[in-house]
Amino acid sequence: MAKKISRRSFIKTSVAAGGAAALLPQTLLSSRMKTRVKLGFIGTGLRGQWMLWLAAKYPEVEIPAICDIDEQMIASALKILKDAGRPEPRIYKKNEEDFRTMLDNETLDGVYIATPWEWHHPMAIAAMNNGIHVGTEVPAALTVKECWDLVNVSEKTNKFCMIMENVCYRRDIMAVLNMVRKNMFGELLHCQGGYQHDLRHVKFNDGINPYGGGVEFGEKGFSEAKWRTQHSIDRNGDLYPTHGLGPVSPMLDINRGNRMLHLTSTATQSRGLHKYIVDKGGKDHPNAAIDFKCGDIVTTVIKCAQGQTIMLSHDTNSPRPYSLNFRVQGTQGIWQKDARSIYIEGVSKEEHRWEEEDQYLAEYDHPLWKRFEDQAEGSGHGGMDFFILRAFIEALKGAEPILDVYDAASMSVVSPLSEKSIRLGSAAVKVPDFTRGKWKDNAPIFGTNDYI
Amino acid sequence: MAKKISRRSFIKTSVAAGGAAALLPQTLLSSRMKTRVKLGFIGTGLRGQWMLWLAAKYPEVEIPAICDIDEQMIASALKILKDAGRPEPRIYKKNEEDFRTMLDNETLDGVYIATPWEWHHPMAIAAMNNGIHVGTEVPAALTVKECWDLVNVSEKTNKFCMIMENVCYRRDIMAVLNMVRKNMFGELLHCQGGYQHDLRHVKFNDGINPYGGGVEFGEKGFSEAKWRTQHSIDRNGDLYPTHGLGPVSPMLDINRGNRMLHLTSTATQSRGLHKYIVDKGGKDHPNAAIDFKCGDIVTTVIKCAQGQTIMLSHDTNSPRPYSLNFRVQGTQGIWQKDARSIYIEGVSKEEHRWEEEDQYLAEYDHPLWKRFEDQAEGSGHGGMDFFILRAFIEALKGAEPILDVYDAASMSVVSPLSEKSIRLGSAAVKVPDFTRGKWKDNAPIFGTNDYI
Repeated sequence: MAKKISRRSFIKTSVAAGGAAALLPQTLLSSRMKTRVKLGFIGTGLRGQWMLWLAAKYPEVEIPAICDIDEQMIASALKILKDAGRPEPRIYKKNEEDFRTMLDNETLDGVYIATPWEWHHPMAIAAMNNGIHVGTEVPAALTVKECWDLVNVSEKTNKFCMIMENVCYRRDIMAVLNMVRKNMFGELLHCQGGYQHDLRHVKFNDGINPYGGGVEFGEKGFSEAKWRTQHSIDRNGDLYPTHGLGPVSPMLDINRGNRMLHLTSTATQSRGLHKYIVDKGGKDHPNAAIDFKCGDIVTTVIKCAQGQTIMLSHDTNSPRPYSLNFRVQGTQGIWQKDARSIYIEGVSKEEHRWEEEDQYLAEYDHPLWKRFEDQAEGSGHGGMDFFILRAFIEALKGAEPILDVYDAASMSVVSPLSEKSIRLGSAAVKVPDFTRGKWKDNAPIFGTNDYI
Repeated sequence: MAKKISRRSFIKTSVAAGGAAALLPQTLLSSRMKTRVKLGFIGTGLRGQWMLWLAAKYPEVEIPAICDIDEQMIASALKILKDAGRPEPRIYKKNEEDFRTMLDNETLDGVYIATPWEWHHPMAIAAMNNGIHVGTEVPAALTVKECWDLVNVSEKTNKFCMIMENVCYRRDIMAVLNMVRKNMFGELLHCQGGYQHDLRHVKFNDGINPYGGGVEFGEKGFSEAKWRTQHSIDRNGDLYPTHGLGPVSPMLDINRGNRMLHLTSTATQSRGLHKYIVDKGGKDHPNAAIDFKCGDIVTTVIKCAQGQTIMLSHDTNSPRPYSLNFRVQGTQGIWQKDARSIYIEGVSKEEHRWEEEDQYLAEYDHPLWKRFEDQAEGSGHGGMDFFILRAFIEALKGAEPILDVYDAASMSVVSPLSEKSIRLGSAAVKVPDFTRGKWKDNAPIFGTNDYI
């Protein structure tokens, strides 16, 4: 009961502070919450195994079936379930299309998809068409048409398609979201995010270990190098926008009071992957002849209906420290992650001077994080994986999906649109309104409570 | 003689390191260097007075004439010259066009222009047409046509038009330029810069003091508020790109081996100036009814012929700490000013971790700064004003202008092009090649030596 009061009082505060409309708990929860759910796994590579390990901790979650085509990965997944004291699941591994058999045969509430990017869309579509809810790893789709497909099929089947964008739940992000909702930054003007992560040792390895040790990929590579690298050969654009865009989307009320209108993308030359191959494998290595299409750094600028801009950076082929490049700026203040700094007019002690972020992040720690910090600890990616998986499971039990198919589409569509913009010399490209006008009335959900 | 050897040895090192082509001192210096120069001043507001005070320190510089229309500012300028033991100059102050009389009547080697932005172009044109070299404050021009005018008249009259972009000489910038030339960052991929400066107290004041104390501007304002604020009413774009673009231009060899091809700009909504008026002057203040056209934050992305991208931010209407937003990134490393951090692959001690910039900036301190650090101290804007004025004076004496009319045009043209891009919904807009192809063969000058 104490929990309930505390949640209510938070919601009250949030409403009183004039932030985005807070939801009452009732609207988050269906009147008939399920007590048990059946969850299938498609893709039991390293990512899938991690989430399987986490999911096996939930007594209310049954895992009757898994699907992959890699024997080694399946064996690891089975060991995880066995170690967790779970019964052995049915295994679908015949070929790349065997997931369809699983979705046809099994009675599942939901399926979690952690396969190569190009498979997320067909698997999500097949699941929803079989009456199964979807949680898909990012990005949810690779083309504009695929994004529309997800929306149309989700609407037709009444099955949700949650994009498992875990960075939405990063603790500092949620504290800043909390500050945004409490109007600390005033009216938002500009946000930044991105994926600035030296992935050269992910895109290339020795075919045995997942990270580095060689310059192989594709058939000769292991884990992500098997499939992820090919995208850098075939496509020039922001290949991975959701870790930057996802977290700022709720701050800007994207799809819920606001939407993205258009974007431009501009790419640098492509040098890093070729250089890495030559530096590590020699200029005579066969891969040194490959022409990588993806520019090393892609900068995307998005304009929103309520006036704000979002700048995203994609920067994965160069030596650089990891950073998601976050910045949140309004008429009253600014937070900038790379400087670990914040400035709020009238609150910061010295005018025109950065303050350390730490005290603010502690003071505005999100109620959800406060409530679950113990469980989140050690659960992967600084706790983010705990929250996103829990949100998915709660949605399967009947709660409103915290990230829905419109979020999946709007976060993912930035990739194909950025490719188009670059192809057309940085032309401004319109962003579809996947909500078909519902963004005007939809109320914010994410981060409005301490429940999911 | 020791100096000469030291200069030569620097140039050798620079060439040996495989950096941009270094100039031999001969090519920087005309065979007939003047020993005395006559320098006129147009605009003796606060900025002009500062530069006048600095110029009066040079025994070889005569200041025979000044021009302004504000009696108070003229009186201050005269006092500066008197205090410096200089003879009283002839004064041109009849009206806004009296600079033409000065340029017609006076025998000057050069003129320094520090007037409201809209006057830089007509004054520079008139000076060159009168056989007088130009040093103009930034920006040099406000429209594409004006930029072309400067180029055409400079070429026709054989008079130079130096843009007085002082940030090019910032000590950290020159150290990083030094590192770029020594190939520390590898091949450059992406640079950032911008003008992120809360100017609300500059755009509005009490009509008596230059900074704050009221919400007046135009006729009722003082100093920059008299004219600068109007640009935020009339124009939506990056109004002040040169402090960000100028410093990265030599790093990217702009106009000297490289050039800008196209850009896009995207603006946020306009809120800050109106909010400031209401917060400080009340909602009934007459200025609260003004509609400011300029978006609070404007993000511009430029694509270069050699593949690189430049991201510029213009952010002057919001509470925020000052930052020019610098970032320089290549295939081998990255420097980012807001984090005060650097990472160089193979040099930085820990992989994937930022290092403090300080040691690098000290180790790669530019030879020019080392040579002149004592003189630069206390000369304004951290020494930058000393260097840019000295470069102008040396050019008047016969040295090659370190920043020329092509730099003036390419740095300044970003403003009108960004306005156009925003007007057209962030359309990609082509950047003219003001060098008419000479960029392909022109060798780098800026920062190649310890002389200017």
